[in-house]
Amino acid sequence: MTDALIREKVAQATAILNELDIDLWLTYVRETTLTPDPVLPLIVDLDFTWHTALLLSRTGRHVAVVGHFDAENVRRLGIFDRVIDYHEGISGPLVDLFHEFDPRQIAINMSRHDVAADGLTHGLYLTLEDMLAGTPYAERLVPAEEVIAALRGRKSAAEVALMRQAAATTIEAFAAVEAYARPGMSQRHIADFVHSWVDGRGLAYAWPKPYNPIVTCGPNSPVGHAEPGEVSLERGHLLHMDLGIKQQDYCSDMQRMWYVLAEGETSPPPDVRQAFDVVRAAIEAGAAALRPGARGWEVDAAARRVIVDNGYPEYMHAFGHLLGRVAHDGATVLGPRWERYAGICERVVEVGNVFTLELHVPVPGRGVMSLEEDVLVTADGLDYLAPPQTSLWTIR
Amino acid sequence: MTDALIREKVAQATAILNELDIDLWLTYVRETTLTPDPVLPLIVDLDFTWHTALLLSRTGRHVAVVGHFDAENVRRLGIFDRVIDYHEGISGPLVDLFHEFDPRQIAINMSRHDVAADGLTHGLYLTLEDMLAGTPYAERLVPAEEVIAALRGRKSAAEVALMRQAAATTIEAFAAVEAYARPGMSQRHIADFVHSWVDGRGLAYAWPKPYNPIVTCGPNSPVGHAEPGEVSLERGHLLHMDLGIKQQDYCSDMQRMWYVLAEGETSPPPDVRQAFDVVRAAIEAGAAALRPGARGWEVDAAARRVIVDNGYPEYMHAFGHLLGRVAHDGATVLGPRWERYAGICERVVEVGNVFTLELHVPVPGRGVMSLEEDVLVTADGLDYLAPPQTSLWTIR
Repeated sequence: MTDALIREKVAQATAILNELDIDLWLTYVRETTLTPDPVLPLIVDLDFTWHTALLLSRTGRHVAVVGHFDAENVRRLGIFDRVIDYHEGISGPLVDLFHEFDPRQIAINMSRHDVAADGLTHGLYLTLEDMLAGTPYAERLVPAEEVIAALRGRKSAAEVALMRQAAATTIEAFAAVEAYARPGMSQRHIADFVHSWVDGRGLAYAWPKPYNPIVTCGPNSPVGHAEPGEVSLERGHLLHMDLGIKQQDYCSDMQRMWYVLAEGETSPPPDVRQAFDVVRAAIEAGAAALRPGARGWEVDAAARRVIVDNGYPEYMHAFGHLLGRVAHDGATVLGPRWERYAGICERVVEVGNVFTLELHVPVPGRGVMSLEEDVLVTADGLDYLAPPQTSLWTIR
Repeated sequence: MTDALIREKVAQATAILNELDIDLWLTYVRETTLTPDPVLPLIVDLDFTWHTALLLSRTGRHVAVVGHFDAENVRRLGIFDRVIDYHEGISGPLVDLFHEFDPRQIAINMSRHDVAADGLTHGLYLTLEDMLAGTPYAERLVPAEEVIAALRGRKSAAEVALMRQAAATTIEAFAAVEAYARPGMSQRHIADFVHSWVDGRGLAYAWPKPYNPIVTCGPNSPVGHAEPGEVSLERGHLLHMDLGIKQQDYCSDMQRMWYVLAEGETSPPPDVRQAFDVVRAAIEAGAAALRPGARGWEVDAAARRVIVDNGYPEYMHAFGHLLGRVAHDGATVLGPRWERYAGICERVVEVGNVFTLELHVPVPGRGVMSLEEDVLVTADGLDYLAPPQTSLWTIR
C-alpha cells in the first residue's frame, strides 16, 4: 500500500470516528506475522513484533505505542503525532495515554459477525482487560465493527481505480484462457496455464493459489473451493472458471463460462442457453436491488427468486460479498438469513461499496453454470468494474 | 507442508493430549486468509472460508466440521475420520459433536502470553460461548496453550532436518555477502544483493522482506527492525547482518559480524576484538545454561551476566526465542522477567526445542556487535544447527 493511500484511509478513519461519535479507536496487536489484524494494512501496513497499540482519535491526533525496536519504522510513516516506544512493557505508557485522552469510548477490533473487524485475539483481549482493571476505561470498551466496516467498505476513488485495474487484468486473463483451452485438457492443465499467465506478470492471487483459479470441467468435477484435479474438458460440457487476481494490493473475483461445442454444433444447445439466460437474469435482478440503503438479504432475495421461479435449485451460498484488499473483504454480505450470515446479511449497502454478484445453477450432464461480476455501488445505481459477461462464450 | 509432516504432527498432537490428560482440542476459525490461526499450518495447512471446527481427540478419532464448499479439500487430506459439512450454520453439527464426544475439557486456542497459542479471536470466542450456553460444555473450555506449546516447540526429526537445511543456506548467504560487500556500499545496496540471492534461489523470508535482512553499517544506522537505509559501510566500522530464510516452510534466524579494516590495518583493533569476545562468551554462557528443565529467564540471566560483568550495557531484549515455521515461533522465551515476557519467560526448556541465542553490545564509533545462533536442545546439551561464528570476519 502506498503512503498516500494509507494517509487517505487514516483521514477517512478520523472522519468516520466523528460520524459515529466515537472518541478513540484502539488497534492492539503483537507478533502480527502470526496473528495479523485485518485492519493493519489499512492504517499502517507494517508488521509488529511486540505488543503494539495504535490509537486513532476523533480529533485527528493519533498516537502509537510500540516496542523499542519497531519504533523507527512507525516514525518513518509520519501518520502518528507521537510514537512512544518501550522496552519492558506496554501497560504503563498505554494506560497513561488512556488517562490523557480520557475517551468516552475505546473502540476495539472485535465483532461476532464481521471477520474483518475481529482482529483482536481472545488472549490479548484478556490482557487489555487486566490492564484496565481499576480504571474508568474498563467499562468503556466498545466494538469497532462499525468503524472498520465503514473504513474498509467505503472505497476511495484511489481504491476504486486500483480495483478497476485488477478487474481489467482478470478480463484479459479470461481472454487468454479462451484462446488456450481445448477439449481434452484437464482442470489442472488449465489452472497451470493461468498460474503461468498471472505469475509471469508479477501479479498475486486474491485467495490461495492452490484453488485459484477454480476450474470446473463438465458435470464430474466438484463444485466449491476444491483444487483443480484431473477431470478433462469434453465436448458438450461447460468450462467454468473462478479467478481472483491481486494487483497493487487490490483484488478482483470474477467467474466466466464457456461451452465446448459438440461435433456438428455451431451454438450451445437449449438447456445450456436457458441456464445462462436465467443466471444472467438473476444477476441483473440482484443488481437492480443493489441500492444504497438496501439490506444485504434483500439483494440476495431478489436474485434468488429468479433462480427458484425458473425451476432451478437455489444456490447454497450468498449472492455477493464485499471485495477489496482480500476477496472476502468482511462486513456486509448479500446473503440469506442463515446462521452463517447472521448480522452481516442485515447490514445496509453503502455508496462506495464494491460487491461481487455471483450465483450458479447446475446443468445436468453439462456442468455448472456460474457467473460472478464485480460492481461499485454509486449514489444512483451501480457501476460494473469490468464488462459483465452477457453471452455464453464457446470453445471449438 | 507435506502431507507426511502434517500426519506426523497430528499424531504428535494426539500423544500430547494424552500426556496432558485433555480429551478434546478444538481449533475454531473462519476466513483464515484474514485471521489465520497459527495452529492451522501444523494440523491441516489449508485455508477456510466459513466457520470451521477441527476437533482432535485423545483417542485419535478426529473430526472436522466445515462449510460445504471447503469440504472436498479437507477430505483429500485424509487426517479426519469424519468431515461433516454444512450449508446454513455450524452450531447444530458442532454442538451435536460435543455431546457425542462428551469431553471433560475442550481446549481452545487462547493464551494471554503465548501468541502462537492465541489464534481464537475475541468475537469468535463469544460466538462459541453463545453456542455452548445451556450445555455442560460452556464450563469445560480450557486454554490449549500447553498443547500448542508442546506441538510447536518439540520439533520432530523431519522438522529439525528442514531447519538444518535453512541454517546451512543462511551460512551460504553470509559467505556470498562477505565476497560482495565493499566499503562505500549502502545498507540498502547490501540488502538488495541479499534479496537477489534469496529470490534467485526461490527461497522465502522468515520475517517480512522490507527488514529482512537487517543491515547495520557502523555507528550511525538505527538498531532494531528498521528497514535498511542509505548509511554507507566505512572503513573502521562494523557490518552487522540479521537474516532469516524460510526454506520448505521452516526458518533460520542468524546474525553475523564483519569488521571493515581501516587503511593499514591487518586485523581488527582491540576495542572491536574485545566486544566480539564478550558477545561470544555471553552466548557460550547462555548455551551452557540451556538445558532441558531450565526456565527461560535463567538462561537469559546466564548470558546477560557476562555482558554486564564486562562493563557493557545490557541488551534490551530477550536472549533467545523459539524458531520454527516462523522466526518468532511462540511459547518459551529466553528473556528477563519483564512485563512483555510475562508467562513465557517462566516456561521450561524442552528436548526438541530450537532456540535462537542472540545478543549485542554497542562499540562506540564502530557500530553494533551482535551475534545470533540457532540451536537444538538435546537430552544432554545442545546442537548448533549450523557452525556458530567463533571469530570476527573482516572485509578489506
